[in-house]
Amino acid sequence: MSKGKVCLAYSGGLDTSVILAWLLEEGYEVIAFLANIGQEEDFEAAEKKALAIGATKFVCVDVRKEFVEHVCFPAIQTNAIYENVYLLGTSLARPVIAQAQIKVAEEYGCFAVSHGCTGKGNDQVRFELSFYALKPDVKVIAPWRDPVFFNRFAGRKDLLEYSAAKGIEVTQTKAKPWSTDENMAHISFEAGILEDPDTTPPKDMWKLTVDPTDAPDVPEQFSVVFEKGLPVKLILDGGKKVVTDPVELFIEANSLARRNGVGRIDIVENRFIGIKSRGCYETPGLTILRNTHIDLEGLTLDREVRAIRDQFVTTTYSKLLYNGMYFTPECEYVRSMIAPSQKTVNGVVRASAYKGNVTILGRSSDTEKLYDETESSMDELTGFSPEDTSGFIAVQSIRIKKFGEAAREKGNTLEL
Amino acid sequence: MSKGKVCLAYSGGLDTSVILAWLLEEGYEVIAFLANIGQEEDFEAAEKKALAIGATKFVCVDVRKEFVEHVCFPAIQTNAIYENVYLLGTSLARPVIAQAQIKVAEEYGCFAVSHGCTGKGNDQVRFELSFYALKPDVKVIAPWRDPVFFNRFAGRKDLLEYSAAKGIEVTQTKAKPWSTDENMAHISFEAGILEDPDTTPPKDMWKLTVDPTDAPDVPEQFSVVFEKGLPVKLILDGGKKVVTDPVELFIEANSLARRNGVGRIDIVENRFIGIKSRGCYETPGLTILRNTHIDLEGLTLDREVRAIRDQFVTTTYSKLLYNGMYFTPECEYVRSMIAPSQKTVNGVVRASAYKGNVTILGRSSDTEKLYDETESSMDELTGFSPEDTSGFIAVQSIRIKKFGEAAREKGNTLEL
Amino acid sequence: MSKGKVCLAYSGGLDTSVILAWLLEEGYEVIAFLANIGQEEDFEAAEKKALAIGATKFVCVDVRKEFVEHVCFPAIQTNAIYENVYLLGTSLARPVIAQAQIKVAEEYGCFAVSHGCTGKGNDQVRFELSFYALKPDVKVIAPWRDPVFFNRFAGRKDLLEYSAAKGIEVTQTKAKPWSTDENMAHISFEAGILEDPDTTPPKDMWKLTVDPTDAPDVPEQFSVVFEKGLPVKLILDGGKKVVTDPVELFIEANSLARRNGVGRIDIVENRFIGIKSRGCYETPGLTILRNTHIDLEGLTLDREVRAIRDQFVTTTYSKLLYNGMYFTPECEYVRSMIAPSQKTVNGVVRASAYKGNVTILGRSSDTEKLYDETESSMDELTGFSPEDTSGFIAVQSIRIKKFGEAAREKGNTLEL
Amino acid sequence: MSKGKVCLAYSGGLDTSVILAWLLEEGYEVIAFLANIGQEEDFEAAEKKALAIGATKFVCVDVRKEFVEHVCFPAIQTNAIYENVYLLGTSLARPVIAQAQIKVAEEYGCFAVSHGCTGKGNDQVRFELSFYALKPDVKVIAPWRDPVFFNRFAGRKDLLEYSAAKGIEVTQTKAKPWSTDENMAHISFEAGILEDPDTTPPKDMWKLTVDPTDAPDVPEQFSVVFEKGLPVKLILDGGKKVVTDPVELFIEANSLARRNGVGRIDIVENRFIGIKSRGCYETPGLTILRNTHIDLEGLTLDREVRAIRDQFVTTTYSKLLYNGMYFTPECEYVRSMIAPSQKTVNGVVRASAYKGNVTILGRSSDTEKLYDETESSMDELTGFSPEDTSGFIAVQSIRIKKFGEAAREKGNTLEL
Repeated sequence: MSKGKVCLAYSGGLDTSVILAWLLEEGYEVIAFLANIGQEEDFEAAEKKALAIGATKFVCVDVRKEFVEHVCFPAIQTNAIYENVYLLGTSLARPVIAQAQIKVAEEYGCFAVSHGCTGKGNDQVRFELSFYALKPDVKVIAPWRDPVFFNRFAGRKDLLEYSAAKGIEVTQTKAKPWSTDENMAHISFEAGILEDPDTTPPKDMWKLTVDPTDAPDVPEQFSVVFEKGLPVKLILDGGKKVVTDPVELFIEANSLARRNGVGRIDIVENRFIGIKSRGCYETPGLTILRNTHIDLEGLTLDREVRAIRDQFVTTTYSKLLYNGMYFTPECEYVRSMIAPSQKTVNGVVRASAYKGNVTILGRSSDTEKLYDETESSMDELTGFSPEDTSGFIAVQSIRIKKFGEAAREKGNTLEL
Repeated sequence: MSKGKVCLAYSGGLDTSVILAWLLEEGYEVIAFLANIGQEEDFEAAEKKALAIGATKFVCVDVRKEFVEHVCFPAIQTNAIYENVYLLGTSLARPVIAQAQIKVAEEYGCFAVSHGCTGKGNDQVRFELSFYALKPDVKVIAPWRDPVFFNRFAGRKDLLEYSAAKGIEVTQTKAKPWSTDENMAHISFEAGILEDPDTTPPKDMWKLTVDPTDAPDVPEQFSVVFEKGLPVKLILDGGKKVVTDPVELFIEANSLARRNGVGRIDIVENRFIGIKSRGCYETPGLTILRNTHIDLEGLTLDREVRAIRDQFVTTTYSKLLYNGMYFTPECEYVRSMIAPSQKTVNGVVRASAYKGNVTILGRSSDTEKLYDETESSMDELTGFSPEDTSGFIAVQSIRIKKFGEAAREKGNTLEL
Repeated sequence: MSKGKVCLAYSGGLDTSVILAWLLEEGYEVIAFLANIGQEEDFEAAEKKALAIGATKFVCVDVRKEFVEHVCFPAIQTNAIYENVYLLGTSLARPVIAQAQIKVAEEYGCFAVSHGCTGKGNDQVRFELSFYALKPDVKVIAPWRDPVFFNRFAGRKDLLEYSAAKGIEVTQTKAKPWSTDENMAHISFEAGILEDPDTTPPKDMWKLTVDPTDAPDVPEQFSVVFEKGLPVKLILDGGKKVVTDPVELFIEANSLARRNGVGRIDIVENRFIGIKSRGCYETPGLTILRNTHIDLEGLTLDREVRAIRDQFVTTTYSKLLYNGMYFTPECEYVRSMIAPSQKTVNGVVRASAYKGNVTILGRSSDTEKLYDETESSMDELTGFSPEDTSGFIAVQSIRIKKFGEAAREKGNTLEL
Repeated sequence: MSKGKVCLAYSGGLDTSVILAWLLEEGYEVIAFLANIGQEEDFEAAEKKALAIGATKFVCVDVRKEFVEHVCFPAIQTNAIYENVYLLGTSLARPVIAQAQIKVAEEYGCFAVSHGCTGKGNDQVRFELSFYALKPDVKVIAPWRDPVFFNRFAGRKDLLEYSAAKGIEVTQTKAKPWSTDENMAHISFEAGILEDPDTTPPKDMWKLTVDPTDAPDVPEQFSVVFEKGLPVKLILDGGKKVVTDPVELFIEANSLARRNGVGRIDIVENRFIGIKSRGCYETPGLTILRNTHIDLEGLTLDREVRAIRDQFVTTTYSKLLYNGMYFTPECEYVRSMIAPSQKTVNGVVRASAYKGNVTILGRSSDTEKLYDETESSMDELTGFSPEDTSGFIAVQSIRIKKFGEAAREKGNTLEL
């Protein structure tokens, strides 16, 4: 008799195939779940394989629209970034996949969910914290943290032998010397040879973007139109191509960035599990949309609103995303701070992509008037009197003069 | 009889030449002061001109070393940046110039200092707040905020006529359609045609860097060695060229960045005086040193130290620099937070410069062991037990399960 | 012919009476405006006097309800406080009064507004920034910053002489040795003898609260019920007295605090105008409501939501209120962060007031279940396994062990 | 043969006596360690009992001086507080005790340390994170998280039976209905009947402070002198009693507060382990020293230094202390921010203690001149011109007018 139904996040790869077989061996019934989040994947082959191994059911859920609209776009609105460099491509996908998996688990009456994440990474945390929020009574089976499993499958060799024994087809007999995770926003490369942080990634590792040295020799101009901080129009080819649907726009931004070598990074980052880890990432379209969004905020966002958003909201939201804290009270709270910050972020940014660069060419807004050419002009005296500035400086300097006087009195010289 | 001695920040240009003549006309004795902060300038011509107009003395002070070591390098250590984009090139120079000017003013017994800044910009504030801190009893003469002056010289035409009348030689009869400010770290372009934020800067405006499209077709590799977050060695030409002196290193980094088109930006920013303004900047070497420094922090800085530094120190320090608050109690306080954050930032970053890009190729540290290849490896079980992570997740999820349960109880569905 | 209509904030006191007369003398027509914001004041006498001096109209607007509901209650929800001590009693009132004054100004076609604030205080800034936001084209007449006025009225003697000359009745011939400002939430005392920060305020200065030494010898128990962080019920007299209307509740809380000597403070604070200033304040009811609110948040608010709210929202909002930045984009933004933080702040706090103290006796919530007695019990093993904590600590210690190891290796001893 | 030496934190109470016996039974040799951190305790009885049970050695270390000088005083300098209410009395003691215990462990060649903390509290985390930092290779034996132990000793009855069987003398046969932890700075009460957050603590629970209703009817005046933010002199009895030694000063402050009922609080707080818990605390002297320190900062600390310290340093430091993160890179970093913030905090605060209240009577500083009576006086025109404020307001209002204009244009009415 079955120990109950388990919904397994199944990719069709070696690890989760072994996990699937092992779960069956352990007496569970398995619903294999696969999210289509824009990764390049043979979904049909995965289905066949899952059923061949013995899954009761294979369920593939297309979450691309939710991913772009509910997660990637707010990340653009907040200019989300982790440790100055990482655009959170993997982190963004996790709550979307977790939500879909829990829905499948509930639909098929699974008491547990399972995944193939290792015991040292961020993803196990991101998935499981989402699981527990969405279904607090769910049981999580994490084989790579279960000694019964990890002691039995100590290396790739064990997995291959088990596969052979179970008649599991192994498509790729030789593993790449790194592991990857892909979705519509990005691909990550880590582990294997990349674990030496001084190893330059080989040219053929990069997948989504063309190498900047091989990208076209002529900058490609484009425009992005934003409404309330959301990209609503991408204009290419001198206006010949215009996309407005969020998913299409995101795909087109990806395509534009990919052919111009935009979006590669290489970082040593700090995992939530207090370990440092080296990752290489390609995040093509998101880089373009984020950069143009930042530029438009310069024109349309009030200075202090921006400062508050930058220091508190962007920082906090990025950290919460990274740590897998999407479905938490604090993340719900922080998300409520996004839309109110973006009311005035309306306008167009013109830019070009060229061999890895995104260059801003100009920006404008029909509706927002915070920027006032005449007023900011050094040659004009309209708007306010230069004498006002004297008063402004005089008042600002009250404290500062006191500081200078105290230093003099105490014999401290203020110096660079 | 003289109304007293004034120390005027004199550039040799039209504005400050008129101001010099006008100050003399108003009955002041003038000491002309010019800081050599690495800008391209004909210092001798400026001296001749100042004396010809009637300055009692022309004093040129070389502040390049202080600028690099006391201001630019700490900016690298903090990854200073304003509004996500601007590397603060002009802001960094102001306290250095102000300090030198006050020293000259004191040396020559000037009761007042004067400058040619307009009444709408940041620089007047930056200079004057520094003046008042360094010499609280100093008087500041700001002609562009004095109605006697600005009503008399309403436009460029008035300045030229006055120059002609006073016999002041005007070298450049036709002004460029923008104004610039240059120092060893950067050049800024603003005003004039750039006041329309949708005008793309003309190709011939950029001065310090080659256009990325014209830069070499082959990436140029280099390494930067950091000690306590300070760049101490720049290695070029595959090791054939090594510079270690701070000023030379900075110049070499500039040169490397300039020939590879690195460091251009275009931004609409928020001035301290609550006006938005558009600026184009070239900050070649600083971009390279800052990017490599950020990378090394990934390898060598503790996660939480970095988070505190990023959210509080970097943000606060950048804002203080931008607003001209260098010589203030709070900036002194924040500066005291830089060195303690950089104790472990020791190592080498290998990178390449290519047509506007700075690409990290690898990083290493002989002394800092926060990164542990074996430990972070997904394939290894050393360091800590994967089962520990189960406990970590279980404890992290206590709050989160409660959140999920409360949502369920109240009939709220948690959703993306 | 009139130079136009001015709406003057008129209190009936010496200063604003002289200003009223002077404005008339200067050729303006004056609408005298007085806000009833709960201060103890003879409104009829003020009206008579204004009309006697020559005001075209006297308009008294009752803003008590807006004050309590729109400003005091959100201050309770955010636990607003300035520099650890000051509950912002005066600051809270300013935007309410300014809004009413601008409404009157618009209704009566006034091109300008005027007030009697001095040139060194916070209130001028608070009023005027609100004026400019609400009516950007309004003209502000600030006599105490106008040399024509302040040079003419250099001291109290000049004001009295002018009053006598103009036939203005002066009720209080001898001024108190401090100045006060009162509203429903608090009264402030400053200036005069209080300018010496080492002078203990005389016992008879305090007005709203009984001296703690004279307060009843028996603690008075009460309960406050909060919904979404708002006080919705105050229960007194062992349940015999229950108030729910916001204004009544606020008055009753005041009364409770006043008779028990609750809410006095004495502080040297930092004004927005960079001056330090000493103030004594009585804020009776607000102290009680704020303290009980803080307590309930302990029981009902998620830890991380609270931490974010405390560090960013409370701090920022308090500073904005203090600086008079109520009607600004950033304050609108920060206000939007209040309600989402208070969704779970539902429950009852039982407390007592006794000779200056507010003592919490207990708290409970029918709806919020974040606190779990069984789970938090040290004697129970339900909820989560103690072994989980071992994993939690193991993961938390990864970084920390590295820190200890690095210290040992470098020969640094970690020490207190 | 012994499994090795363990250094056990031994209190002489039931739990740690059973743990001691159990460790011996398990084959360990035990060094019993007890820190004298100012708690009321019979150290000799504890020694006798430990040796009687079978400890190889009993080591009592007096850490009172380190506790006051290295931990309590910096907490005063930072005004440390957790969740608006808790003064961190227990948290402060933990790193001091842990450091002493590790020193003893090293001296006696113990491979492991052990403690009697439960598996749900903060203290286990605080102790163990300190252990791991100070001696990264130490083994921690936490019986209350070890199923072998906690399954055997499921309740008090089991402990008592075991004690009887082992011949362990049990002094207190009936436990109090709460548990306490005491040190020189405070005592905590939690668990037992206090687990119901609506239960008012019984009057006889409180131990260190007299009930405010029973405290003297006359306020007791005193003064505290601070240098660089550290209390260096406590003056009592109208000057007849003066203490300057840190430990004596702290004891005297305690005594003053205790007899006047100062320092009681009752809170539901959020543990690091994500559980809410209710605690009652008495923190007498620290309350007095912290309140007077806050007051003096008003007089002597620059506004912006204070704001930075308050928002970033106080908040971060308090959280780190609470979470047991004393010996971490980030806490070391944050501690480096304390002294630079306190350079000007020099002066005297006069205050009174009365039935639970600490009332500030006045403050002064001979050396710091940030407060300027004349300048802050509303009646004086010295220092700066009131007209300067007009310019200050004009410049501040640039952004705000734009905000108002945009609202008008878009038909949004700005409102409270």
